[in-house]
Amino acid sequence: MSRFFSHKYDKLKAYVPGEQPRDMQYVKLNTNESPYPPSQSVIDAAKQQAGLLNLYSDPEITSLTEQISKIYGVSRSNVICTNGSDEALNFAFMAFCDQDRPIAFPDITYGFYPVFAELNNIPYEEIPLCDDFTINVDDYCSCGKNVVIANPNAPTGIALSLDKIERIIASNPDNIVIIDEAYVDFGSDSAVSLINKYSNLIVVQTFSKSRSMAGARLGFAIANEELIRDMNTLRFSTNPYNVNRMTMACGVAALVDNDYYMENCKQIIKTRESTKAKLIDLGFEVLDSSTNFLFVKNKSISGERFYKELKARGVLVRHFSKDKITEYNRVTIGTPEQMECFINVTKEILGEL
Amino acid sequence: MSRFFSHKYDKLKAYVPGEQPRDMQYVKLNTNESPYPPSQSVIDAAKQQAGLLNLYSDPEITSLTEQISKIYGVSRSNVICTNGSDEALNFAFMAFCDQDRPIAFPDITYGFYPVFAELNNIPYEEIPLCDDFTINVDDYCSCGKNVVIANPNAPTGIALSLDKIERIIASNPDNIVIIDEAYVDFGSDSAVSLINKYSNLIVVQTFSKSRSMAGARLGFAIANEELIRDMNTLRFSTNPYNVNRMTMACGVAALVDNDYYMENCKQIIKTRESTKAKLIDLGFEVLDSSTNFLFVKNKSISGERFYKELKARGVLVRHFSKDKITEYNRVTIGTPEQMECFINVTKEILGEL
Repeated sequence: MSRFFSHKYDKLKAYVPGEQPRDMQYVKLNTNESPYPPSQSVIDAAKQQAGLLNLYSDPEITSLTEQISKIYGVSRSNVICTNGSDEALNFAFMAFCDQDRPIAFPDITYGFYPVFAELNNIPYEEIPLCDDFTINVDDYCSCGKNVVIANPNAPTGIALSLDKIERIIASNPDNIVIIDEAYVDFGSDSAVSLINKYSNLIVVQTFSKSRSMAGARLGFAIANEELIRDMNTLRFSTNPYNVNRMTMACGVAALVDNDYYMENCKQIIKTRESTKAKLIDLGFEVLDSSTNFLFVKNKSISGERFYKELKARGVLVRHFSKDKITEYNRVTIGTPEQMECFINVTKEILGEL
Repeated sequence: MSRFFSHKYDKLKAYVPGEQPRDMQYVKLNTNESPYPPSQSVIDAAKQQAGLLNLYSDPEITSLTEQISKIYGVSRSNVICTNGSDEALNFAFMAFCDQDRPIAFPDITYGFYPVFAELNNIPYEEIPLCDDFTINVDDYCSCGKNVVIANPNAPTGIALSLDKIERIIASNPDNIVIIDEAYVDFGSDSAVSLINKYSNLIVVQTFSKSRSMAGARLGFAIANEELIRDMNTLRFSTNPYNVNRMTMACGVAALVDNDYYMENCKQIIKTRESTKAKLIDLGFEVLDSSTNFLFVKNKSISGERFYKELKARGVLVRHFSKDKITEYNRVTIGTPEQMECFINVTKEILGEL
């Protein structure tokens, strides 16, 4: 840290993204990317825009906002587009939380929430998950704080039903409830249907997982018009051209090709369930997943050792060194072929114990 | 503003980017874009990456950082890449300014500086330019505040010589000096050569102007390793994948094709000087420009009217309603053909007075 760095960040610990080692070619199951490429029209859209890069992108993000509003059955004024969903989350933390408006979230969840809180000097409460890694809804009802919940949760993969989500929103009318639906397309119910019923709800989604655009950086939030306007005030106060020209056009194309992506999600769900069955046969404990990953442990091998043995054999998964989940690993669902490789390598590792 | 919006933003007024009207096709001279398209290898790089969009971009931005460090003769650890240079500027404001470390900048300069200051709750001083729109260097020497200076300045176009910039940096050893060199490639001297001499210097540049990539969103900062590390702490605490895969590859390709872009800059300078001469012949006052735009006024027509008459005839320039410069317009240098059109339309307008 330089002597010039502001003391307001004394307690800030930056987020650590999943590793991207370059020493060899891995079966990469560690950052929840889609194993399926973008559709041809997304590739064509990028090409077409590349020739126009000398011109700024549309700061109103008109075409993409329109397309999102169509697919999700809301108005354009209910949508904000961002440079990945992390930016939407950060805008929501910045806009609606402060010293007087703290935020609550589970102790085991997306690791960026405490970072956004620290970054913006927001007091936060980390509420322990139940022993079975589910969220106790009552912990969040009338809690007197803003709330952010990843639904389905990560890295557990467990989803809350929409009626439980609605209980949290309805019981906190004077606080913001952010539902982070990064993995919603893999089998849980979206809260988007509730945005006109509750003025305190913000739903955040991403093109990184179900829509094969992690590398393009595109996220969005859906909420009532007033909240979106506030978030846009911050967008125009940080980076009015936050979404570049190519990504914007790719996003439109991806939504036009929605069927292709939703088919991919179905395939990923199928692969997930068959992988889960095989892991259970091998003695793993596997949490119920509504996402494109599985959270798994095996009594016969520590979480850290399993991670290392896999990596040594060319398979990357994600291990978190947090106490409560140190015995687990998070395994992204890849293609059937990738998962077969993962299962075979796992058998090899278990066989050598 | 919703009832949930944090009061910390009560005084925040968002930045207003140049208009992007869609009612007709304009000769667009209002946002300082390059009139020249990106080179073929930039287009090819975008295409190639589009097929890999399902994979996250490299959070270390290795290849691009390396290429920038080569071109500018610095180490990789001296470089941070951002989603447009606005993000680099915002990181610098966030990292090094706070309630106890205010910042000073000219009263006539890039309109985003006061927005970043308000956004981050940073006290700021706007120091008046001299009557001839130059910066009085003594105002900034030993000023006891952080400093940000656009060099050349916008919207005036006037550059400070490097020895004057160095005086400001050297006289403020306990404060950060940010030199925003968005327009440096159009004829002024860069302060990059000073980063190893002064630990308090941050140079910010962009691919938006001289490198025809406004629509790709790519900026960078060059500074000593410690300052870059602090800015990276903020990058990893907001958006570790801030630069998308396509833009990253386009940036590398643009630097490989550096000669093409520097030739374009030469052409733009040539067009600028011939346009300036023609405007002077037409009775305009034209400030000395080291940028890809001219800042012009004409006693026989108000700044606002000239802007409106041009727009009505299909030529867009930028007018700022700020008192001290309300008689001026900022005119981006386009192709020779575009500038011929601008000059002809201007003659028509003046002829009708």
